[in-house]
Amino acid sequence: MPDASPEQRIFDLLTTRSGITIGTAESITAGAVASRLATPAGASAYLMGGIVSYAYDVKENVLGVPRQVLDNPGAVSDECARRMAVGARKALGATITVSTTGIAGPSGATQRKPVGLVYIAVASPDGTTCEEHTFAGDRAAVTAASTERALEMLLDYLLHYAKDN
Amino acid sequence: MPDASPEQRIFDLLTTRSGITIGTAESITAGAVASRLATPAGASAYLMGGIVSYAYDVKENVLGVPRQVLDNPGAVSDECARRMAVGARKALGATITVSTTGIAGPSGATQRKPVGLVYIAVASPDGTTCEEHTFAGDRAAVTAASTERALEMLLDYLLHYAKDN
Repeated sequence: MPDASPEQRIFDLLTTRSGITIGTAESITAGAVASRLATPAGASAYLMGGIVSYAYDVKENVLGVPRQVLDNPGAVSDECARRMAVGARKALGATITVSTTGIAGPSGATQRKPVGLVYIAVASPDGTTCEEHTFAGDRAAVTAASTERALEMLLDYLLHYAKDN
Repeated sequence: MPDASPEQRIFDLLTTRSGITIGTAESITAGAVASRLATPAGASAYLMGGIVSYAYDVKENVLGVPRQVLDNPGAVSDECARRMAVGARKALGATITVSTTGIAGPSGATQRKPVGLVYIAVASPDGTTCEEHTFAGDRAAVTAASTERALEMLLDYLLHYAKDN
């Protein structure tokens, strides 16, 4: 099924490869990634849950992102995305987590950070990896693109991880 | 605008009534409620975030639901929904939270708990309130109905709370 959704392909992978659990740390997507991951019946076998960290305080207190990272380079940064994913592994007790942070707009842009700038990170026992994207469109389009790419990135990572471990 | 979505009406209310913050604790809806709450541009003014507690361990460790509640009356119960909402207030530092727990199906039903059984609770400084529903339809329909009702229940509560406080 080449047309299967990433969440269905994650289901197919993780229900035949037991022991790997997943979770999310979501700012810009605000729960949409976890919601998609929960779509396949039986997802509870490997989906631990997620932390929707919209406020700085939640990023700091629940995910353990240091306040100095939130101040500089800021909540929308490679560093923050990585810290969020790592923090979610600990908070949720999950093997592999995906995080999202970005500027959905229409407000929130700065001189150096445009609307549509999004960081997506994956954390695993092997370390973390992070992508930077600048998605086009309005708030809904940026959020949808972030959700889709987070699911794809998690799937890609899981395919390699399951092969190597 | 009588046709405005509950998340838009919550936005209208909370951006004119500062100081009240909100959050979620989601099992069956898995982040869909938080995602909807984040839809209006500017929601970050009052939306702290959410805890997607799919696994028992996350309900216990992040939300503080006692293991004995998860064992009996179980994760799908009035008691668990209330504990989840109360736990989210503390974890997220939010004034008012809404929680969801239920059986989306197609599996997971028991003799006394059918597919579609859902508990939705709201916690505030004034206490907690909980509704029991049995929604019809497949997994997607039960999840969608739970999401919609959680948003409506939160809106109704906020309307009363903002008037009284």
